[in-house]
Amino acid sequence: MKMVTSLSAMQKMALGWKRNGTQIGLAPTMGYLHAGHISLVTKARKRVGKDGIVVVSIYVNPTQFAPHEDLANYPRDMARDKQLCKEAGVDVIFAPTDAEMYPAGSNQNYSTYVVEEALSRTMEGRSRSTHFRGVTTVVAKLFNLVLPDFAVFGIKDFQQAAIIQRMVKDLNFSVKIIVAPTVREADGLAMSSRNKYLSAEERPQALTLYKALQAVRQLVRESSVPIHADSLKFEIQDRIEENPSARVDYIEFFDPKNLTPVKQVSRGVHMALAVYVGKTRLIDNILLK
Amino acid sequence: MKMVTSLSAMQKMALGWKRNGTQIGLAPTMGYLHAGHISLVTKARKRVGKDGIVVVSIYVNPTQFAPHEDLANYPRDMARDKQLCKEAGVDVIFAPTDAEMYPAGSNQNYSTYVVEEALSRTMEGRSRSTHFRGVTTVVAKLFNLVLPDFAVFGIKDFQQAAIIQRMVKDLNFSVKIIVAPTVREADGLAMSSRNKYLSAEERPQALTLYKALQAVRQLVRESSVPIHADSLKFEIQDRIEENPSARVDYIEFFDPKNLTPVKQVSRGVHMALAVYVGKTRLIDNILLK
Repeated sequence: MKMVTSLSAMQKMALGWKRNGTQIGLAPTMGYLHAGHISLVTKARKRVGKDGIVVVSIYVNPTQFAPHEDLANYPRDMARDKQLCKEAGVDVIFAPTDAEMYPAGSNQNYSTYVVEEALSRTMEGRSRSTHFRGVTTVVAKLFNLVLPDFAVFGIKDFQQAAIIQRMVKDLNFSVKIIVAPTVREADGLAMSSRNKYLSAEERPQALTLYKALQAVRQLVRESSVPIHADSLKFEIQDRIEENPSARVDYIEFFDPKNLTPVKQVSRGVHMALAVYVGKTRLIDNILLK
Repeated sequence: MKMVTSLSAMQKMALGWKRNGTQIGLAPTMGYLHAGHISLVTKARKRVGKDGIVVVSIYVNPTQFAPHEDLANYPRDMARDKQLCKEAGVDVIFAPTDAEMYPAGSNQNYSTYVVEEALSRTMEGRSRSTHFRGVTTVVAKLFNLVLPDFAVFGIKDFQQAAIIQRMVKDLNFSVKIIVAPTVREADGLAMSSRNKYLSAEERPQALTLYKALQAVRQLVRESSVPIHADSLKFEIQDRIEENPSARVDYIEFFDPKNLTPVKQVSRGVHMALAVYVGKTRLIDNILLK
């Protein structure tokens, strides 16, 4: 397994693979890897086959964090990440530096962004106004540096995956986007590097996201008629906030094809939510079916 | 010579060239080709060699026109363009359709843009607020569809060339940008598809841009001290507007490295201007040396 930090070295290597017709699979991450990330790697490994190359990028991208968010505290453990990547059959870890990714200087301040202006207006985009602009920008950069045939994203970040797919389609990147299922802890909590922030008292309360999704799925299954989205939101918010440390950021019901919010909830509608548990902001989502 | 309109056909072809290690040179144009465009093609032809591929894109990109601008009237003559490309040794004309470039529909409205936020604030960007966002977006799309090793742009659009270079650097496109000199009519008027709009009375007045650039270059050469940019602007504007049909949009003096306006003009400073001649908006620029 190779560790690459230089942008030009990464791109040169990728151009070489391209010339040889080698399949390249990319799993973009911010590191502090867990079983969810590893499932993306495993998917990539399977897809490229033994002659293909799996690249995992590990980069805590500053442009997707707002000034008040957890950029400085975001968990990092490169030694452990390396070990996990090695075990999972990764060929290259690409871990670029901020100085190369977003250069600053008198004649060369970084100034180009990729913006998606429809799907990114709701949910995470409303709560975190510059978040997706940072995501689309860094993913476009990673695509140009690693030149993957496909890239694997987790469905835990459902809106992100939808926006990346839209970006690829709109800007005509020759990259196939694979969306992989959410990996959960034994009790149902969606895996996330941010789970590390949870205290012992908060950890059981964090399960409220999963429970809310399951409860709504059950309600929708049992109801013979569509249910008002607003009344569902109120009811679910109440249930969640019975947990003393839990505060709802948003609960949304939408068409998974175009992320348009719906007023009536029935099978085929997608549900997503963001909840603060203490100071930790967690997200999860489910297709109601 | 091949004519390609389908996006997927273009990209498939380009991916094939990539796998064979074939050099690809791109000259992006809006068609209605003149000797300036052909000079870009000739440069590309030379650079790729006999085994390489020269692609000319011909696409009047709607996103770089504001609603009140000349999109509908922009001159088009595909039959003539084809003939000129053939004679110049072009391998592929890529002429996509609006419907494929910017799809519109219930679940798939186009929504992703590339924005450059520093170099695009002055001059053309100030006069035409959404222009460069359209340019960077379409060029990013063309790069992803044609996968060129290099692309050739004319220096007549100096700010555009600077912004494209910045975009390539910032988003890490593996595309080398070549900037080619302005080709002029015998009397000095910079070649432009928009020169076609000029009436018989306007045509001689259009020469005022070239004359202004030459006059300032001469002044700067003869002056032993820097000249105030503002007084130069006033003087040149007066001279230009002695032509009854000419109205200055802007005159700017700036550092060619970062496009920052300067207050004192001396050798090494770059000058650019935009002038309406009747209803036709023309631009030109020169390095004062």
